[in-house]
Amino acid sequence: MVSKFFKKVSKKRGLSPGSLVLVGEKKKYEVEITLFDYDEGRLEEKELEEVEESFFCKDRDTTSWISLNGVHDLEIIEKLGGHFGFNPLVMEDIVNTDQRPKLEDYEGYLFIVLKALHYDRESDEVKAGQVSLVLGKNIVISFQENKTDLFDPVIERIRKGKGRLRRMGSDYLAYALIDAVVDNYFVVLEKLGDRLEDLETELINDPAEQTLQQIYRMKKEMLFMRKSIWPLREVVGGLQREEYELVDEKTIPFLRDAYDHTIQVIDTIETFRDILSGMLDMYLSSISNRMNSVMKVLTIIATIFIPLTFIAGIYGMNFENMPELHWAMGYPSILAVMLAVGLAMLLYFKRKSWL
Amino acid sequence: MVSKFFKKVSKKRGLSPGSLVLVGEKKKYEVEITLFDYDEGRLEEKELEEVEESFFCKDRDTTSWISLNGVHDLEIIEKLGGHFGFNPLVMEDIVNTDQRPKLEDYEGYLFIVLKALHYDRESDEVKAGQVSLVLGKNIVISFQENKTDLFDPVIERIRKGKGRLRRMGSDYLAYALIDAVVDNYFVVLEKLGDRLEDLETELINDPAEQTLQQIYRMKKEMLFMRKSIWPLREVVGGLQREEYELVDEKTIPFLRDAYDHTIQVIDTIETFRDILSGMLDMYLSSISNRMNSVMKVLTIIATIFIPLTFIAGIYGMNFENMPELHWAMGYPSILAVMLAVGLAMLLYFKRKSWL
Amino acid sequence: MVSKFFKKVSKKRGLSPGSLVLVGEKKKYEVEITLFDYDEGRLEEKELEEVEESFFCKDRDTTSWISLNGVHDLEIIEKLGGHFGFNPLVMEDIVNTDQRPKLEDYEGYLFIVLKALHYDRESDEVKAGQVSLVLGKNIVISFQENKTDLFDPVIERIRKGKGRLRRMGSDYLAYALIDAVVDNYFVVLEKLGDRLEDLETELINDPAEQTLQQIYRMKKEMLFMRKSIWPLREVVGGLQREEYELVDEKTIPFLRDAYDHTIQVIDTIETFRDILSGMLDMYLSSISNRMNSVMKVLTIIATIFIPLTFIAGIYGMNFENMPELHWAMGYPSILAVMLAVGLAMLLYFKRKSWL
Amino acid sequence: MVSKFFKKVSKKRGLSPGSLVLVGEKKKYEVEITLFDYDEGRLEEKELEEVEESFFCKDRDTTSWISLNGVHDLEIIEKLGGHFGFNPLVMEDIVNTDQRPKLEDYEGYLFIVLKALHYDRESDEVKAGQVSLVLGKNIVISFQENKTDLFDPVIERIRKGKGRLRRMGSDYLAYALIDAVVDNYFVVLEKLGDRLEDLETELINDPAEQTLQQIYRMKKEMLFMRKSIWPLREVVGGLQREEYELVDEKTIPFLRDAYDHTIQVIDTIETFRDILSGMLDMYLSSISNRMNSVMKVLTIIATIFIPLTFIAGIYGMNFENMPELHWAMGYPSILAVMLAVGLAMLLYFKRKSWL
Amino acid sequence: MVSKFFKKVSKKRGLSPGSLVLVGEKKKYEVEITLFDYDEGRLEEKELEEVEESFFCKDRDTTSWISLNGVHDLEIIEKLGGHFGFNPLVMEDIVNTDQRPKLEDYEGYLFIVLKALHYDRESDEVKAGQVSLVLGKNIVISFQENKTDLFDPVIERIRKGKGRLRRMGSDYLAYALIDAVVDNYFVVLEKLGDRLEDLETELINDPAEQTLQQIYRMKKEMLFMRKSIWPLREVVGGLQREEYELVDEKTIPFLRDAYDHTIQVIDTIETFRDILSGMLDMYLSSISNRMNSVMKVLTIIATIFIPLTFIAGIYGMNFENMPELHWAMGYPSILAVMLAVGLAMLLYFKRKSWL
Repeated sequence: MVSKFFKKVSKKRGLSPGSLVLVGEKKKYEVEITLFDYDEGRLEEKELEEVEESFFCKDRDTTSWISLNGVHDLEIIEKLGGHFGFNPLVMEDIVNTDQRPKLEDYEGYLFIVLKALHYDRESDEVKAGQVSLVLGKNIVISFQENKTDLFDPVIERIRKGKGRLRRMGSDYLAYALIDAVVDNYFVVLEKLGDRLEDLETELINDPAEQTLQQIYRMKKEMLFMRKSIWPLREVVGGLQREEYELVDEKTIPFLRDAYDHTIQVIDTIETFRDILSGMLDMYLSSISNRMNSVMKVLTIIATIFIPLTFIAGIYGMNFENMPELHWAMGYPSILAVMLAVGLAMLLYFKRKSWL
Repeated sequence: MVSKFFKKVSKKRGLSPGSLVLVGEKKKYEVEITLFDYDEGRLEEKELEEVEESFFCKDRDTTSWISLNGVHDLEIIEKLGGHFGFNPLVMEDIVNTDQRPKLEDYEGYLFIVLKALHYDRESDEVKAGQVSLVLGKNIVISFQENKTDLFDPVIERIRKGKGRLRRMGSDYLAYALIDAVVDNYFVVLEKLGDRLEDLETELINDPAEQTLQQIYRMKKEMLFMRKSIWPLREVVGGLQREEYELVDEKTIPFLRDAYDHTIQVIDTIETFRDILSGMLDMYLSSISNRMNSVMKVLTIIATIFIPLTFIAGIYGMNFENMPELHWAMGYPSILAVMLAVGLAMLLYFKRKSWL
Repeated sequence: MVSKFFKKVSKKRGLSPGSLVLVGEKKKYEVEITLFDYDEGRLEEKELEEVEESFFCKDRDTTSWISLNGVHDLEIIEKLGGHFGFNPLVMEDIVNTDQRPKLEDYEGYLFIVLKALHYDRESDEVKAGQVSLVLGKNIVISFQENKTDLFDPVIERIRKGKGRLRRMGSDYLAYALIDAVVDNYFVVLEKLGDRLEDLETELINDPAEQTLQQIYRMKKEMLFMRKSIWPLREVVGGLQREEYELVDEKTIPFLRDAYDHTIQVIDTIETFRDILSGMLDMYLSSISNRMNSVMKVLTIIATIFIPLTFIAGIYGMNFENMPELHWAMGYPSILAVMLAVGLAMLLYFKRKSWL
Repeated sequence: MVSKFFKKVSKKRGLSPGSLVLVGEKKKYEVEITLFDYDEGRLEEKELEEVEESFFCKDRDTTSWISLNGVHDLEIIEKLGGHFGFNPLVMEDIVNTDQRPKLEDYEGYLFIVLKALHYDRESDEVKAGQVSLVLGKNIVISFQENKTDLFDPVIERIRKGKGRLRRMGSDYLAYALIDAVVDNYFVVLEKLGDRLEDLETELINDPAEQTLQQIYRMKKEMLFMRKSIWPLREVVGGLQREEYELVDEKTIPFLRDAYDHTIQVIDTIETFRDILSGMLDMYLSSISNRMNSVMKVLTIIATIFIPLTFIAGIYGMNFENMPELHWAMGYPSILAVMLAVGLAMLLYFKRKSWL
Repeated sequence: MVSKFFKKVSKKRGLSPGSLVLVGEKKKYEVEITLFDYDEGRLEEKELEEVEESFFCKDRDTTSWISLNGVHDLEIIEKLGGHFGFNPLVMEDIVNTDQRPKLEDYEGYLFIVLKALHYDRESDEVKAGQVSLVLGKNIVISFQENKTDLFDPVIERIRKGKGRLRRMGSDYLAYALIDAVVDNYFVVLEKLGDRLEDLETELINDPAEQTLQQIYRMKKEMLFMRKSIWPLREVVGGLQREEYELVDEKTIPFLRDAYDHTIQVIDTIETFRDILSGMLDMYLSSISNRMNSVMKVLTIIATIFIPLTFIAGIYGMNFENMPELHWAMGYPSILAVMLAVGLAMLLYFKRKSWL
């Protein structure tokens, strides 16, 4: 499970920077390319067979969005990057899906890398996929590592044709995509929050050894999310704060809103981490408490019966000259003594409130 | 209990930003709207049936305060926001009551989000409600998530008619409302401080397993308060430091005072957290100490009686040829030996200061 | 003991800011007012009956110091504040003695709040009292929450008439008072350092359950001191760094010196905290170590005698057909076997270095 | 193992700064000097016998790279430094291989110190070697503490003659060398990540005492890597951010890329550290859990058999008057009683879910 | 041992600032004053009887160094300070040897306070002595709290007459003295590193109770060193960064070098602290591990023999009607049963891998 924190990079070592080499696993499906070209009045949507069909979008007045599902077809990336004039390092970062979220300002376009998270039901784990955006004048090109329905709400809003999205430019579209990624974090957090709550119930009612492993796993999930989201903060913060020519003033309040959401995600993650620490303390001391109660049972039993057994042992000795053995009331009185000793012990434990 | 740290947001996902959707639970009562319109000499106070009755407040020379108790009637918010020209994002944030405290500068008005805390006796928990303020020229519009008596002292001071509040403008009114929120934190802290003191007494005198759960719960309360108050610091600090046209220079010292109070609240929370950490250490080591004393009892009893039982066992053997058994003084002398061994053991424990 | 970290503030809640309400306990003694008016050549010292007797100090060329012992007489504060033109918030802060140390710049005067600490022998605790200073042109007005001898050294130096104090102005007097407060921290730290050293000796030689409680208490003292001193740092640092008209350039090196002392106090407190953490670790592991040695005693005794008792048990059985019982050397040889088993066990423990 | 964190420096103490003294161990092999002199069209590569053969590189238009493998021949360093005008402190830092990574701006050249890490299979440890770069106009001189194949990929790219490396100047070459060092960190991290994963499996399935020592060792490796990489961040960050005349604008995006990689390395190290902390918690509580289960076995056995043995002891007593002994059903009924007691105990443990 | 973190300051309390009072212990030896006056060609070295012999150094063109060993003769300090025009606060700080390292800029001179550390073999502790430097134009006056050989290497380099020291001015001399102090830290760290390594070996092979105390002591040493070195960083950093007229541009690279060394010392201290924390974890869990193994021995022995003893107890009962007792094979078969039970137990422990 540690392995999701680092990827095998050795095969890339020693290559010239800007060389395109696929680092993640090779996907089997074809890369899907969808094109949206719209202004307030008009929408053209098209599934493309060839990437070249999108080349006409350069230098248009309408807003275009080229959405790629999958980055494992290096040829497509190279063609697209070549036509739209990407820096080789940008192409490399799109393909190498182990980038940190970042925002880079190139001449004529902004390059944005994000991590989209989703909760994988099967493995019961949070998984990440890289989303890269290239924001140019009147154009956004988006690259998703995996096929997901992440951008479906945005597509829906484009299709409906009403609302701000169709009226505003490519910068607002980029915002909408970033916001979709951040929104998804809340969904993941909700899932994790539910699990955390289950864990808490378990911890209070019946902590098992496996509870600890769950805490440990949740902690690692938090580490993983943190790693994706802290740099995101700088990305969205930077977009909102600094003055990029490509980002219109009217989009700023929306970016500020997305920034607030990012902070909220970070806050929640940090809170979850603190709660998990508290749970660990609870768990550890509940182990100690149980050990304590085990010890008490042992001590009570041993402390009552060991002296009694000793008394029985005395009268089991075979000395010839043991007058008590011959007394008529010897046996009942020794039983009475034993009873008295036992009760005294019980009283003692009662007073120590062990019972 | 973890659930109070996050709200179910999934239903909002995928909507256009600025869409009004109620995130919290639907309240059953009607939203109460109260209007105060005053200057130094005159006060008009009115419970409004319809929100439209407050529309005349725009562009008046007197100070107006429109106070809304409840934000669950989206229509009212929309009408009000429409008339007074709120940004759609502002309206969204008023209705979505899971915002972080923040201060936003829009053209013509400041938008302030706060978290009001109160100690809920029934659930024995700290609960939060969102308070949003829109501060315009000569007008303050306040939105409370829940019906509370939070602003009663401010209303009282307006009614009395004397004092600074009636003389100064809308910025001072906004200050007074913020100050009422911050003041309330002290009340909550006092309650928590009392509980902390009870907990400390319990911890020193008779720590039970439940004590730990109390510590854990208090820790979570602190996390919860922290989450509300740290961003508040920036809000009040920003109001006091930066130069907003809407904030008069004469109000600044009062805002600085409110800022000092915020810092004091933060200080106290951090101190409480440190104290709780210390309590946890105390608790853990008191468990260990008790285990130690249980073990000592067991060890003392076992160490005294196991050798004695062994001696008794020897003379319980049935060998034919055991001369001691036939000695007249065999029995008493073996008893004396046992006594001696027992006393030696006791002495040993005394010297080890286990007794 | 937690209670010293927060004061009951509920009675103040809802009042207009600037209202004078006593928050601390009502003192029974009368407020003492002393007036010093001096320049290099001349000194007038006077115990005042009425606060009005000090009013002539306004706008004089000589340096005046009005020293108030006690802030519980609201009337006096109001008269004084009224005459010398204090902001109502300043008066409120003088009376509400639960302020954080702070420095505020009002027109014509600086307002400084400090916390004076002293070690209370009876309760064996560090206690705090608020000291407020108003520094104006040629005048210092000081307010002490409690009657203390804190400023006696400064008074002595004024009386002696030699040295810098009489030559320099009111800013130097304010410095001297601040320095007296900071100097007193060292005295408290010395006391705490002695206690820490006692605790360390106790910890190494004979840690008792009560040692832990002492560590816990010391930790809280440190939290308490920290809370008073961290903001003091900003106060003295601000005075020294920023350019206030009221602070002469010649006083700056002295303020810098006071600032250095403050840093030294903070350093020492942080070091003490680290040492206390180390002590806690020592304590916890000494408990474990002792548990270990208890367990060893039990294990050694049980491990030696339980097998021996078993052997004795065998020959205590009543089978008819047990040939060993009839051997002449049966008894001595079984004793020899037992001795051998016992010695073997001892040897085993020796090798495990448990003995 | 601690020793790798500090080097014996005492022999250097008291020398004038800038004196060349070898601090690391004396290597036995000869220092290898390789010269590359190239522009886009031409490449001259040469193994040098004497360092003087490289002197012609000064003030040429083509890009030169003098690569030294080994810094233990002080004479060579002195000659080279003398000819190319190094500051004596630079020469000292090249030879004293216990420098922190740093970037220094001298007149006419930049001096860069890096730490190259590699994973030593034999000792199963991360080891560091110092790499120093002097970047001048059209020249890079590199000094490696140890013979490694670190720069082989760069050499390969130079030889191939295509690509950016031959087209761009000495600053890009310096970038390529820095990037080779940073790339190598990923290789080391991959190894450590694998080990971490093994450790995790071990921890969950069968934690042994040695697991703890592994965790401890891994923690130290992380400390060691951290020490090398945190300052590296400043170095690469500085190169990218600040405007050095020697660094061409076109190289900046590549340096920014290298900076991103450095941050990624730091992120991964911090994550590994957090994971290791979590592992330690797991380990400690697994010890406690095992102790718990050991105690349970003991308690169950003792609690069942001690009372039974007591009952047997009673009827082993030799009193004359014990009627039960003479009952025909005495023996079977007492056996039945014992069975009942034993089963009752088992039931009790079942209910406590100890079984 | 705590006491070395704070000095008895109470006797100074209440004095006017700038009053000379000795805070440390009174030394018995006379203060040694040595004068060096040199330029590149000439060197005058002289042990002075009277401090007045050094007064001629003021306003000379050659570089002068007045070195005082001991600061306990207040008269000497006062004469010197008076002649060379020290601020009274400077004189006070020279004599009060519990200052934090600091750098102060007075008119005409810089005042620098450092802490020189050395490892005291007898008490096995790190000890500190204050070193104060006054750097004026063409003059350095140094004050050492204790007689040490700290500056011998610098003296040696002055005497040798070659090298930079004689050529450059008083600022370089000051640098050389600071560097000597910092160099000495490495020597102390080396000693502590050796001890740390011993401790590690001890910890892995045979952790004793005393090991913990060693860890605790080392931790305190680190705290102590930290307290001296963190502020030193600011001192050297300030000298190097800010532009002081007295510091020549040519000296800056050397100061930067000294600054690097300071950072390296801090790095190493922080690393040592982290290693010590790791050791503590190791120690605590090794205690738990040992407890575990003690418990296992007890449990194995008890679990094997307690049931066996019970069986023996049964056949030790004196019932008349116990048919087994009269069987010819009763005794051997019961022994066989016992053997079987014992072996079964052993098998069980084997399977649980406790053996």
